[in-house]
Amino acid sequence: MHLRDIAQLCVSPAVAVPPRLEVEDRRFEDYLMPLAEWTSSPPRIALVGVPQDIGVARNGGRRGAAAAPAAIRAALGKLAASIGEVILSPEVSICDCGLVRTDGLPLEEIHQRQEYIVGRLLDVGANVLVLGGGHDTALPNGRALGKRVERLGIVNVDAHLDVRILTDDGSHSGSPFRELIEDAACPLEVLIEFGTQRFSASAHHVRYVREHGYIVWMLDDIRRCSLEVALADVELRLAECDGIMLSLDVDALASAYAPGVSAPAGDGFQPAEVAAIIERIASMPQCRLVDIVEVNPSVDADERTVRLAAYFAALTMWTFAHRRDDASSPIHFRPASDDH
Amino acid sequence: MHLRDIAQLCVSPAVAVPPRLEVEDRRFEDYLMPLAEWTSSPPRIALVGVPQDIGVARNGGRRGAAAAPAAIRAALGKLAASIGEVILSPEVSICDCGLVRTDGLPLEEIHQRQEYIVGRLLDVGANVLVLGGGHDTALPNGRALGKRVERLGIVNVDAHLDVRILTDDGSHSGSPFRELIEDAACPLEVLIEFGTQRFSASAHHVRYVREHGYIVWMLDDIRRCSLEVALADVELRLAECDGIMLSLDVDALASAYAPGVSAPAGDGFQPAEVAAIIERIASMPQCRLVDIVEVNPSVDADERTVRLAAYFAALTMWTFAHRRDDASSPIHFRPASDDH
Amino acid sequence: MHLRDIAQLCVSPAVAVPPRLEVEDRRFEDYLMPLAEWTSSPPRIALVGVPQDIGVARNGGRRGAAAAPAAIRAALGKLAASIGEVILSPEVSICDCGLVRTDGLPLEEIHQRQEYIVGRLLDVGANVLVLGGGHDTALPNGRALGKRVERLGIVNVDAHLDVRILTDDGSHSGSPFRELIEDAACPLEVLIEFGTQRFSASAHHVRYVREHGYIVWMLDDIRRCSLEVALADVELRLAECDGIMLSLDVDALASAYAPGVSAPAGDGFQPAEVAAIIERIASMPQCRLVDIVEVNPSVDADERTVRLAAYFAALTMWTFAHRRDDASSPIHFRPASDDH
Repeated sequence: MHLRDIAQLCVSPAVAVPPRLEVEDRRFEDYLMPLAEWTSSPPRIALVGVPQDIGVARNGGRRGAAAAPAAIRAALGKLAASIGEVILSPEVSICDCGLVRTDGLPLEEIHQRQEYIVGRLLDVGANVLVLGGGHDTALPNGRALGKRVERLGIVNVDAHLDVRILTDDGSHSGSPFRELIEDAACPLEVLIEFGTQRFSASAHHVRYVREHGYIVWMLDDIRRCSLEVALADVELRLAECDGIMLSLDVDALASAYAPGVSAPAGDGFQPAEVAAIIERIASMPQCRLVDIVEVNPSVDADERTVRLAAYFAALTMWTFAHRRDDASSPIHFRPASDDH
Repeated sequence: MHLRDIAQLCVSPAVAVPPRLEVEDRRFEDYLMPLAEWTSSPPRIALVGVPQDIGVARNGGRRGAAAAPAAIRAALGKLAASIGEVILSPEVSICDCGLVRTDGLPLEEIHQRQEYIVGRLLDVGANVLVLGGGHDTALPNGRALGKRVERLGIVNVDAHLDVRILTDDGSHSGSPFRELIEDAACPLEVLIEFGTQRFSASAHHVRYVREHGYIVWMLDDIRRCSLEVALADVELRLAECDGIMLSLDVDALASAYAPGVSAPAGDGFQPAEVAAIIERIASMPQCRLVDIVEVNPSVDADERTVRLAAYFAALTMWTFAHRRDDASSPIHFRPASDDH
Repeated sequence: MHLRDIAQLCVSPAVAVPPRLEVEDRRFEDYLMPLAEWTSSPPRIALVGVPQDIGVARNGGRRGAAAAPAAIRAALGKLAASIGEVILSPEVSICDCGLVRTDGLPLEEIHQRQEYIVGRLLDVGANVLVLGGGHDTALPNGRALGKRVERLGIVNVDAHLDVRILTDDGSHSGSPFRELIEDAACPLEVLIEFGTQRFSASAHHVRYVREHGYIVWMLDDIRRCSLEVALADVELRLAECDGIMLSLDVDALASAYAPGVSAPAGDGFQPAEVAAIIERIASMPQCRLVDIVEVNPSVDADERTVRLAAYFAALTMWTFAHRRDDASSPIHFRPASDDH
């Protein structure tokens, strides 16, 4: 199979599937085909987990996000694969790449490995969902997509901006968007920081983002204008991009809903608002990459955040699966020779 | 007293009442008259707890709901018996039947006992509030009311549909509405599943409910139309019923507000929305039965869910107490001979 | 320095300041000047903590609020001192008085000490933010401001009314507003109970407040009218006051957002609503005093409530700092000779 090179870099943890009373009661588990068993045509959707929190530690945060991908994956498998009377089509089997092997590797090597895997999946035409990991997960994601398009658009749903300077150790969970902004090889046409909270982002950093020509939508302004209006603005700004990535830092939600994160925020989005954001962005045909990051099961409350992340993962896949990616799609990949 | 037969089937746990500074500071405790002391005319409102979670275990859920009725009852007693300047009338003493004796009984026998007790209370004219227990609590409730009316209406406020098939052991917490639908003796005219969540209900089950002529109001659709519009639709559909039951599964709320449930959902109703539902449905004169189920104190956070359930219980009683159940009420009981 | 007398009554706990990558990344810590180092002109803003929960214990509540001021102060220091591109002006250094020395003192003596300190700070022109402590913290606050104005206005944001009668021990966390109402020396022109919840306040107490000519805005009524309309009413009622105090009991929020309080309420305000209240009231030039009370770190969930209180503290200071307190201000202090 043409994805064998990826299979060697990943491991598929055993997932305990509880017995089901009714065979018609289809769950996401039924659609998550392990990479090793993948024999059909290139996947339309691919799922990858990146279990590491080195970047969180470098950023002075509390570790634990490395356990998120396996936990979210387990919760995802149990969700019903339907909305109302509509069931996910049996044709939409999803390539479950499992978890990237990260044991003992330095962060930079993990990032390279992740970028390679995500790039390969994009090349075969998959829409990719990456489960982090700290927010530095977004760096190799942005690079992988950036190498394959001419005008990259990124929406970062986050209480923070994550444009800090590097530490002496290098990249960390608070720096990915600075690195993408300053990466000359990355055609970052549009960056929209969405949901930035007052007293959680330095004026210094807000100015940095705006002076580079990018957008900061503060949470207060989103509320003042309404989420609907803000999303219409986001969609308009992304229209000319030929590759879009949505990065969802779960600390964008109020910590009541998502307590299990590295840096909880008392105020923030509600689950239905984040769902509306996912549906809006992931339904744009140029959206090829979504990551869900910063879930930290070790500080979670009864898996509340893990379950919510699984719900967002399910909604992302559902949106990918129901999108009409037809020939008129504006996506035209550049060759990404350095990636192979 | 004419309810002596019920008294033998129930036990009233001792409730510790904290001392109060001011006698005018009336609490619900002052209105909850133990069944053993009940000497007045038939109660207008009766409270019954059913401490069992056998059905939850059969459904593969985590046990703990058996402790809910006593915990909710204790929290309820401490609530002020007033809204603003309006105090609950001293005439509205509530018959507190305590907890149904369930120790060592198989689930089927508990269900029969509960159905008998609830039926007796309905027969003497009481509006009944049942504290569960797993959601199978709704099965004997529906049967008790169904035997006494010609057109039964049920509103199930729930993230799930609870129309699964039976296990080898029989009834469980995920099957009550299937059993009521398929019970030829139950005149289930209207069933409204209210707040069903995407990825939490199988398409298969949604179709099952609709094919039997019943209604599924998905949470997303309620939000799209507004709760107000959805409730107006519910009220219209229930108008012709001569007996209405409201079943409130507390997992219909976002788990931030109600973490102590068997199967928490990250998204869901907010407390004020559930309060609006209770006020709307329980104020219909045909509404004779409300149950509050699936609270699980063993996984609760600082009694958050228990207190919220107590608030919903107080609001239900308040609504019952302020309802004008006059002679023009369309309730005409059928004889329910098999129940005596 | 002219505030030396206060310095002797307070202690400044050592605050661990984490190292920062970028010097331009200004935090509130940079603005909180310890009282001992205060050498400039009178402070525009002063911060005082009152670590005691004796009044909570007297009210039958669970102790723990004594630890709140230090915890909130630590969380506050880490917050970014900016909203969007606007950074707090370097001229707005805030006098951080630390914590009032309360060890071993009876409650009445703590109250006197607090009233003296707050009064002194008001006299030198500071806008004062007090971190409690139980809600009896509001009693010396109200007295201190009341002695200095002719028409005192108080807004109490709270699930409860806190107008209970005294216990045999005297003042407690449930009685401050009764004591202020009945204090002939306190020119309490306007008292607005804001966010009172049904089943959490006795009709008896609601009537008590109203019969004394004061206002109860129930949470339900606020929702019915909209927060915007209710706040416009509050602002209008306060217009003629020459001194305004905002008392924020964090149990006014739904316990999902603020679990760490003495008496949690399942329903209640959301964080953004409380932020709107703070911005509206604290931006009135007559508003000289804000207290944030009833945070209880010992029952908190991962510092959720402490962080939220820190956010409200930051917003209060921000609002004070950006307010135009010009000569046309209607504040004309009376001499408060008994206080010196």
